Amino acid sequence: MPANHFIDLNSLKVEDWGRLVDLAERMRENPEEYNQCCRGKILATLFYEPSTRTQFSFQSAMFRLGGQVIGFDNPGTTSVAKGESLKDTIRMLAGYSDIIAMRHPLDGSALAAAISSDVPIINAGDGGHLHPTQTLTDLVTLSIEKGGFDGHCIGVCGDLWYGRTVHSLIKALSCFNNNRFVLISTKELTVPPYVREVLDKSGCEYSFAETLEEAVPELDVLYMTRIQRERFSSPEEYEAQKGVYVLDGEKMKRAKKDLIVMHPLPRVDEIAVEVDSDPRAAYFRQARYGVFARMALIYTMLSEGLNVRELREGTHIEPGKRCRNKRCVKAFEFDLPDFVHQSSDGLVCGFCEQIVS
Amino acid sequence: MPANHFIDLNSLKVEDWGRLVDLAERMRENPEEYNQCCRGKILATLFYEPSTRTQFSFQSAMFRLGGQVIGFDNPGTTSVAKGESLKDTIRMLAGYSDIIAMRHPLDGSALAAAISSDVPIINAGDGGHLHPTQTLTDLVTLSIEKGGFDGHCIGVCGDLWYGRTVHSLIKALSCFNNNRFVLISTKELTVPPYVREVLDKSGCEYSFAETLEEAVPELDVLYMTRIQRERFSSPEEYEAQKGVYVLDGEKMKRAKKDLIVMHPLPRVDEIAVEVDSDPRAAYFRQARYGVFARMALIYTMLSEGLNVRELREGTHIEPGKRCRNKRCVKAFEFDLPDFVHQSSDGLVCGFCEQIVS
Amino acid sequence: MPANHFIDLNSLKVEDWGRLVDLAERMRENPEEYNQCCRGKILATLFYEPSTRTQFSFQSAMFRLGGQVIGFDNPGTTSVAKGESLKDTIRMLAGYSDIIAMRHPLDGSALAAAISSDVPIINAGDGGHLHPTQTLTDLVTLSIEKGGFDGHCIGVCGDLWYGRTVHSLIKALSCFNNNRFVLISTKELTVPPYVREVLDKSGCEYSFAETLEEAVPELDVLYMTRIQRERFSSPEEYEAQKGVYVLDGEKMKRAKKDLIVMHPLPRVDEIAVEVDSDPRAAYFRQARYGVFARMALIYTMLSEGLNVRELREGTHIEPGKRCRNKRCVKAFEFDLPDFVHQSSDGLVCGFCEQIVS
Repeated sequence: MPANHFIDLNSLKVEDWGRLVDLAERMRENPEEYNQCCRGKILATLFYEPSTRTQFSFQSAMFRLGGQVIGFDNPGTTSVAKGESLKDTIRMLAGYSDIIAMRHPLDGSALAAAISSDVPIINAGDGGHLHPTQTLTDLVTLSIEKGGFDGHCIGVCGDLWYGRTVHSLIKALSCFNNNRFVLISTKELTVPPYVREVLDKSGCEYSFAETLEEAVPELDVLYMTRIQRERFSSPEEYEAQKGVYVLDGEKMKRAKKDLIVMHPLPRVDEIAVEVDSDPRAAYFRQARYGVFARMALIYTMLSEGLNVRELREGTHIEPGKRCRNKRCVKAFEFDLPDFVHQSSDGLVCGFCEQIVS
Repeated sequence: MPANHFIDLNSLKVEDWGRLVDLAERMRENPEEYNQCCRGKILATLFYEPSTRTQFSFQSAMFRLGGQVIGFDNPGTTSVAKGESLKDTIRMLAGYSDIIAMRHPLDGSALAAAISSDVPIINAGDGGHLHPTQTLTDLVTLSIEKGGFDGHCIGVCGDLWYGRTVHSLIKALSCFNNNRFVLISTKELTVPPYVREVLDKSGCEYSFAETLEEAVPELDVLYMTRIQRERFSSPEEYEAQKGVYVLDGEKMKRAKKDLIVMHPLPRVDEIAVEVDSDPRAAYFRQARYGVFARMALIYTMLSEGLNVRELREGTHIEPGKRCRNKRCVKAFEFDLPDFVHQSSDGLVCGFCEQIVS
Repeated sequence: MPANHFIDLNSLKVEDWGRLVDLAERMRENPEEYNQCCRGKILATLFYEPSTRTQFSFQSAMFRLGGQVIGFDNPGTTSVAKGESLKDTIRMLAGYSDIIAMRHPLDGSALAAAISSDVPIINAGDGGHLHPTQTLTDLVTLSIEKGGFDGHCIGVCGDLWYGRTVHSLIKALSCFNNNRFVLISTKELTVPPYVREVLDKSGCEYSFAETLEEAVPELDVLYMTRIQRERFSSPEEYEAQKGVYVLDGEKMKRAKKDLIVMHPLPRVDEIAVEVDSDPRAAYFRQARYGVFARMALIYTMLSEGLNVRELREGTHIEPGKRCRNKRCVKAFEFDLPDFVHQSSDGLVCGFCEQIVS
């Protein structure tokens, strides 16, 4: 299934990431050069669950390229509400647009869409599974703010167990040289086994820290995320721990002068507002870089195309194997092939990458 | 009331339909030639009830012409919700836009809007009454896929009693030569008397079929529509009949090699998914042709204008006659003139075309 | 805090109002000259409460300048619903757009947004506080329809106590020469003391009228607004008075030939529909002029910038003073400075202009 879809960052070669990041930077430096390069093209933004920020970022990107946008953010008012299948919706929209960015609450839905689509699909978040344009945005941010992807000490802080953004970032940065990770969280919320395996295989150094305070001094990059209150083991634990993972002016005093603080946004209270005025606070700049990341992606897909060999490496059909993930697109959408592939955990569903049985 | 509004396909001469269809085909073949021809113009899409598909089709059409779009699909969040009259909303929007495409749940609402509007109105569906851009789309499809409007054997299948799309298509095709219709439905759901009258007057041949299977072999065109479960005379009847009006691979084997299958979409289960990959399945292409149909319409209305002699032929004012249709715009909107006209059924309301008393 | 934001008409000099009005008129006369002047620019329309009319007016304005628009009208489907602060939403959007038009239910919210924004903010209505683009629209209307801002007899009718639009218009017109006002309302709903003070200070003549009928003959301009039923002192009072403040054809007969009738729209029943066809009914034209007013504003802010010396004259920080207004943005948004300024009523909150204590 070689195709010009952006479902998973890992279906591209690392050098292709670099090419997208370089293009994003050129677009930032010379916006006028690109402001008509998608003229006459239409992006459809299909947001089956709302995400203002991501949708605005895509819209802004397409407009900065001279293109146009159709789309919905409110599937309650669409034919989707009338029981139309994802496949039919995609086939219809492929007739109205030149490229589709889709956000959907089901794991694997972006791949399911790609199978039916005559136009390129961009995964703008498929359930708890992947959100590759966020990771591309993070790479653009590192390139602009830190000059590259090698030799950094990167702290990741917050809910590392569920944090899809953090997992993807670690996977991506473990492909480069001499990066070191500090995993800052409670013991219960540290990274899941498969992320440690990625780190072990890549040979990256990593260590654990239970407080932000102890970790901060050595970091070049601090990637903050939110811990939802209900993820703590008890209300008492929440009360005891709540300040430990909040970045404030006091903790910033202990940090390097050239640290950058990143956050996928929206933040709630895990970064004190006083930090916003610190020049090392890069998160609002990061949101802006996301527009250039998406511009580079859209333009590449609409011109030369992405160099994707397989949407998911090693995918094949193995009938009789069933995905048990209730949030997988296979549980809702008929007529999808029984894709599976081998992962380090065993045989997994080709859509949601959960173990099949 | 001669005017540049597109309320009813029948307010145009048949040769003007041909002109629109030809333009749609030229726009499909040479999109670059037209991609700036509505630059600086604004289309307002007023969708008082949601219809993603139709709205996207209009948006895409306007963008492909280089124009812009404003509009709503969610009247709950508009001043409409504050009790503003249709007339005032239209007059306001006519100040903000150059052309308006309106969908509204009330019969006759498009004509009511046209009366108050300083800019051209396109009827994008007025209740159960008319949906002329769908019929224009169907004509474009026949022209592209079958080379013209004459000499076809056309099967129409499903709910022929309520199916506004089917009625309009039959009315339109009965104006051409040597077409033959096969009306495929249960006895209860066959076409209403006025449609038979149209057929009789036109001299078109037609026959009835109670199963898709028997009808399929002779067809050049099969127009599928959905039968809602509650339209069958009883649950038992539904169970007994449900497969009879479903098009599947088996039935397709009995069909001509150059049959085309059309459907206004969204489909639910009246066409099996396996049919989608058959090249004779034209319904997704048909959705795409709808963009060109709407491009041709918008461009014509914004440039030379439509050649409409009367919005509804023979319309005059006859005070004292009252429309009893509770879904007619006259029951909701004040200050509308008491339009009536003669139909073959008797004197009908000029807005909804139901008998007045 | 000198800045290129449009929060309050009074933060501009009167001669700058004239410059905006003149530009709006030139744009109306030569639309082609301006239809690409904001090409490549993006307006974000943040409507925290719906207002179709105002939002469409802004969208139409930006499109007529060749620019693009992103935005929401339904904060329920945005990250705002996830508890994001206004400040963070604004900072994010400032990264995606070049200028922001914001409508928000809280008094003072536009100023709060301006404090955090890297791009120009336009106040498209902040609670019951200000709606300066409406007043700018009214000035453009007077200029086009009456040739200028001096020497008019202006009747304002309806709910003068709460009518933010009317207060702003009186404040604005009191800066010009030889205007005379007739305040037409019940005694209970006449203008609040601060508006009388503005009138007294300016030296403008003014008088009171309890019926529209008595006032109409002397007017050059009649500015109608709606009285909500619940604003009458009792249901009996409402019944007794309801026709008194409705403009109809009968009352129009008593008016000057060159009167113009204005209304901010939507109207409910305070102007009879029969008046719409009177050429003196200027309210739908006024809605259209609003597009030119906003075009002039957006273009000025994106090119040379507004000549704002202070967002609110005399504003300073006085810690310890508290705003008691429960609809003030200060009651909801953290980290806002304790702005206050001196008004004729005493020390007021710098955001909502209510008395602080």
